[in-house]
Amino acid sequence: MGEAKGLNIAVVGATGAVGQQMLRTLENRNFPIKHLTLLSSARSAGTKVTFKGEEYVVQEAAPDSFEGIDIALFSAGGSVSKALAPEAVKRGAIVVDNTSAYRMDTDVPLVVPEVNEEDLRGHNGIIANPNCSTIQMVVALEPLRQQYGLNKVVVSTYQAVSGAGAAAVAEMKDQARAILNDEEFTPQILPVGSDVKKYQIAFNAVPQIDKFQDNGFTFEEMKMVNETKKIMHMPELKVAATCVRLPVETGHSESVYIEIDQEGVTASDIQQLLEKAPGVVLQDNPSEQIYPMPAHSVGKNDVFVGRIRKDLDEEKGFHMWIVSDNLLKGAAWNSVQIAESLLRMGLVEEK
Amino acid sequence: MGEAKGLNIAVVGATGAVGQQMLRTLENRNFPIKHLTLLSSARSAGTKVTFKGEEYVVQEAAPDSFEGIDIALFSAGGSVSKALAPEAVKRGAIVVDNTSAYRMDTDVPLVVPEVNEEDLRGHNGIIANPNCSTIQMVVALEPLRQQYGLNKVVVSTYQAVSGAGAAAVAEMKDQARAILNDEEFTPQILPVGSDVKKYQIAFNAVPQIDKFQDNGFTFEEMKMVNETKKIMHMPELKVAATCVRLPVETGHSESVYIEIDQEGVTASDIQQLLEKAPGVVLQDNPSEQIYPMPAHSVGKNDVFVGRIRKDLDEEKGFHMWIVSDNLLKGAAWNSVQIAESLLRMGLVEEK
Repeated sequence: MGEAKGLNIAVVGATGAVGQQMLRTLENRNFPIKHLTLLSSARSAGTKVTFKGEEYVVQEAAPDSFEGIDIALFSAGGSVSKALAPEAVKRGAIVVDNTSAYRMDTDVPLVVPEVNEEDLRGHNGIIANPNCSTIQMVVALEPLRQQYGLNKVVVSTYQAVSGAGAAAVAEMKDQARAILNDEEFTPQILPVGSDVKKYQIAFNAVPQIDKFQDNGFTFEEMKMVNETKKIMHMPELKVAATCVRLPVETGHSESVYIEIDQEGVTASDIQQLLEKAPGVVLQDNPSEQIYPMPAHSVGKNDVFVGRIRKDLDEEKGFHMWIVSDNLLKGAAWNSVQIAESLLRMGLVEEK
Repeated sequence: MGEAKGLNIAVVGATGAVGQQMLRTLENRNFPIKHLTLLSSARSAGTKVTFKGEEYVVQEAAPDSFEGIDIALFSAGGSVSKALAPEAVKRGAIVVDNTSAYRMDTDVPLVVPEVNEEDLRGHNGIIANPNCSTIQMVVALEPLRQQYGLNKVVVSTYQAVSGAGAAAVAEMKDQARAILNDEEFTPQILPVGSDVKKYQIAFNAVPQIDKFQDNGFTFEEMKMVNETKKIMHMPELKVAATCVRLPVETGHSESVYIEIDQEGVTASDIQQLLEKAPGVVLQDNPSEQIYPMPAHSVGKNDVFVGRIRKDLDEEKGFHMWIVSDNLLKGAAWNSVQIAESLLRMGLVEEK
């Protein structure tokens, strides 16, 4: 069990879609693990999970589960994080939380390593992993902010169903089968499990992700607005989002319009800047029909950017198309990347 | 064959997806037809088509096909319109052309009846029907332009596969079946039949509709830019578009950000204005999860508008979500509506 030297890692929500990707990512990165603890809700406890060829039995998460843990990766829903993250911190663990429970707390760093890794130094035990659709956007925008200044962002998303969990993916596939076979079906999960009305997702586009707020924006849209400002340290940035769920299994896409501060910048300047930007893969060659697509992003850690065009009227305006695997850079990979940063920055030490 | 009094109507492309919708729309509207002529390419000639319970044999379109025709509805591709629309006009027909062949010609009115019906008076024989994604957007924006002035439009589209024809729909369904059954498949049609590379459309999002232009925008995107300015008589309007093809059979959706000229306008003002706007159905009640969706727009002539929100930073900025059946208001219904306008305005007369 585990290596000679390494960290004691707990994964909370180990049986979920993101938890499974966290385990695959820890394997692929060969993350130095001394001891691995797999935790879940009572419902999933007892499930057997394989990691590096060894079988683990998932245990029900409880306060004492975190004794001796160095880093706990949480992805079991906001209520689990609310209840157990403070217990983990009390016992000396650093929590990397993939839920929205703590993201906007002023004493909790909200971190995308390519953008604001240094914010990790100020942590008080809990570090928040941003919303999937926010992460991929700020990775692409941060190099532009640094080089040209950033003033305004208008984003329309094309979001995959796996962001709503494995049951939502199964629902989409069942609906698609029913429609192709000309059979009846009753939507049961999407757009929002806890909302009253359910709508068809297969062969449809649903402009609601998460619940509506009083201002008419959804919670998902306000996450993109508020988290982008916090991660980029730009409370004054103008941001607006329209978030739409699509019949795509994995891979979020975003149509993004920005206005930068500097004049005289060309699309080619931005392409050259993003070509060498950390975490970004430029896929932008219209004459060869090269542009990012969700089906090609699955299983990859990168943020893919293409369709970069200067606005036809606004000297400081640009359009781009940003795609990434929502379960990896949007969740599991960003969380593991934060753990790697903590280690490299000496904020946690191998035993 | 036909009614006692009415017009001699020709439908060119009668066997295609839009042509079929034109026939259904002429039936549903009980359009006064004296004699109906169904035309197509040589390939589809001989096909039998039913109209109002009578069977018609589709004939190969030729210059002489238009002798005695009052209105010819063209939807058989740009090259057919280029070749035969002038021949139809020469023989006294008014052509309503659903292709892009003549849309930007200065002597050809480009008409959406709710917006610029009066432009029909200046026609020289050919009237162009705009691009599907343009039509639904200008129907929603024209009332705002009239009331508040319009300065800027940034649109991201979520376009259905039926816009690329019946073969593309079949390809999407075949791919979906293959993916659900874990079988191999080879994309053959989308994104653009005449382009080299073909990409998966099922469970994917493809940011290319029509060919790329030298400025990095696609032809579809430039249609939205140029046609919007022409229809709204606003050459100075700032417009930019990102057009994306989705695995949706029918129903285009659009996430639209606009900046109006007037200050102090609220989302509620815009809702009230659009509630009584011609051709628009307001579906905008977040607390009841009411918003437009493509799956609910199929078979309806209306343009559905919802998710109307004031921008969080820009006093004159608003966001909205616009959905319509791309084969109806986006094509067949708008063409038949133009024919109805010609009749009502006395620009053509029943015999």
